[in-house]
Amino acid sequence: MTSVAQRIIAAVSEVAGGGAPLHAPVFRGNEQAYVDDAIASTFVSSVGAHVTRFEQELAAFTGAKAAVAVVNGTAALHVALLMAGVRRGDEVIVPALTFIATANAVSYCGASPHFADSEPGHGGLCPQRLRAHLEEISDIRDGLCVNRETGRVIRAMVPVHVFGHPARMDELMRVAEDFHLAVVEDAAESLGSRMGGRHTGTSGLAGALSFNGNKIITTGGGGAILFNDVQLAARARHLTTTAKVPHPWEYRHDAIGFNYRMPNLNAALGCAQLEALEDMLRSKRALHERYSRAFADVEGVSLMDEPDGCESNFWLQTLVLDEGLEDQRDGILEALNAAGFMSRPVWGLLSEQPPHAGAPRADLDVAHSLARRIINIPSSAYLGEDA
Amino acid sequence: MTSVAQRIIAAVSEVAGGGAPLHAPVFRGNEQAYVDDAIASTFVSSVGAHVTRFEQELAAFTGAKAAVAVVNGTAALHVALLMAGVRRGDEVIVPALTFIATANAVSYCGASPHFADSEPGHGGLCPQRLRAHLEEISDIRDGLCVNRETGRVIRAMVPVHVFGHPARMDELMRVAEDFHLAVVEDAAESLGSRMGGRHTGTSGLAGALSFNGNKIITTGGGGAILFNDVQLAARARHLTTTAKVPHPWEYRHDAIGFNYRMPNLNAALGCAQLEALEDMLRSKRALHERYSRAFADVEGVSLMDEPDGCESNFWLQTLVLDEGLEDQRDGILEALNAAGFMSRPVWGLLSEQPPHAGAPRADLDVAHSLARRIINIPSSAYLGEDA
Repeated sequence: MTSVAQRIIAAVSEVAGGGAPLHAPVFRGNEQAYVDDAIASTFVSSVGAHVTRFEQELAAFTGAKAAVAVVNGTAALHVALLMAGVRRGDEVIVPALTFIATANAVSYCGASPHFADSEPGHGGLCPQRLRAHLEEISDIRDGLCVNRETGRVIRAMVPVHVFGHPARMDELMRVAEDFHLAVVEDAAESLGSRMGGRHTGTSGLAGALSFNGNKIITTGGGGAILFNDVQLAARARHLTTTAKVPHPWEYRHDAIGFNYRMPNLNAALGCAQLEALEDMLRSKRALHERYSRAFADVEGVSLMDEPDGCESNFWLQTLVLDEGLEDQRDGILEALNAAGFMSRPVWGLLSEQPPHAGAPRADLDVAHSLARRIINIPSSAYLGEDA
Repeated sequence: MTSVAQRIIAAVSEVAGGGAPLHAPVFRGNEQAYVDDAIASTFVSSVGAHVTRFEQELAAFTGAKAAVAVVNGTAALHVALLMAGVRRGDEVIVPALTFIATANAVSYCGASPHFADSEPGHGGLCPQRLRAHLEEISDIRDGLCVNRETGRVIRAMVPVHVFGHPARMDELMRVAEDFHLAVVEDAAESLGSRMGGRHTGTSGLAGALSFNGNKIITTGGGGAILFNDVQLAARARHLTTTAKVPHPWEYRHDAIGFNYRMPNLNAALGCAQLEALEDMLRSKRALHERYSRAFADVEGVSLMDEPDGCESNFWLQTLVLDEGLEDQRDGILEALNAAGFMSRPVWGLLSEQPPHAGAPRADLDVAHSLARRIINIPSSAYLGEDA
């Protein structure tokens, strides 16, 4: 084992104790009680008190005007992109450095991802590099941003708040305005993360949240779409419930809709998890502070901190190896996992994944560099704390 | 109120007592216990003991070689159609008389539904009329069935087991063979329904089940795909889990996959529901017998019985008004619902719904006639029985 691997394991061990998953859910509140309530009510499916309550509480917590609860974050992105007008033959700006769902949701609309680069500090879509790329490859024609090379409309951008660290939304919104792009935020990882007090997922047209089992709170499987426009939210909710026109018994559908509604059983779990969210955020920030101290003197690696002026939820604690140490990444991962500290690299760049290999892309130098140097370490709420 | 409405309400009242929902879930077994187990294990999401067990028990119950648990029946149909090779620009034979999910799943593949007619007795896809239609409008070219009018390949057919009554699969399989069509069964409504001992959903390439809250058993939201080929099942499971190539930490995806895996929380509910299934089938058959006696002498309407040689699960009890009484349907529905007996007509024909109005279609005389005469009446397990 190399000395940098040894130092990293020592620092993780100091904080996390003896072995830990990457990110495990924590159920210490009303989870069983609320789920039992849902079962006792027999309303476990697409209608029920918990799903309505979950949507209202999500809106209140994030400051969005409305939230639409769906089966998962991928479904949230899909419907958000449709609401943004993304259609067959369009292109959508997506960072290459993100989970594959971001690009897949674009594909479900019949559109193609157009990969853009990250900024080096926190891995989010880089506004400067995106602006320079769009200036180089696009024209504005009839109020639409057109890719000169492919002739296709670039309809939207999807900033991702990677590992819970807010992307530079103020600058990205200016790029979006200048190039006539709709903005759908992929806030799957960033529930509880704010920029200057504004919650992630509420700057653009819509924001997608995820409550998969590995997220800061979970509904088993689940997601939500945040909107600042209640009419858009109502239309999105309609699309997620097979686009059925309300009627006591008749079946009429006015669009090709989806079966994307979050079941009430899952929302019941989510209501209890939301009650615990503030304390989990406190705990995850405290974990970051302990990791910061443990890694302060570890040479060769830095711990990602929250961006200036932002509050991260610290979903996943993130180590970035110094440049020149790329070749050690896999050895460090093997050593960490062998020691019981479940750790992983960042996703393989989407621009390199077979299903999206033919998609247009900007220069991706920063994303390539980060992708070879990032290691996520155990990050669960309450890790190493006394229960 | 017309006299036929009065007679129908009297007969329903005799069986169901004072007011009843159309179909409500029943949780009298291990539902809370298993769901609490899943929460206590913290495995509530896409991996867990219950989802594996649920798949195995579904396969054992249906006689399929493998079952793949997914978020809902729509997702099951979507992936089953992809596994059947349905691609952009194809057509797929779908009965006009079915829930809109059957046609939407075809649209998600970029294909178009091609609507076919029903047989008058039980509302399933009519093999004779389908054969005559295909003979009229298609050619076999290079081993593919080509619609002469549109020039598109008709790739597959989706028989639906309407209200749990098995469609005529033996004859439909011969049509499929003669016209080179893959067969995906929409068995969303027919868990527990068999044809000569063979479970619905296991005759063709794949079968889609639903466990929505209104189905014979529920997982909150959920579905499954039945396969007789374990390799196909493994590939389908791969597609439902983002097509991620197995690796302890690396993220590689070899196709545009989906986030369609049933969460373990929902599967826990499903495991308990499966334990209760045989008794619910017994109860629903007994309900049918009581309705049969109550409606034996009611003029103007007949109760749909199971097809010869088949065992129906009697998911929804179905009244068919005599021809000539079509105009009374809405009045009867209003009277039944006003009396507290939640009742509904069959779905509006998909060929008439705006999103599918431009799709090719056969003559749909039988479907049109049935669509104006069907009324589903309260059908829950244990309805009118002492608990």
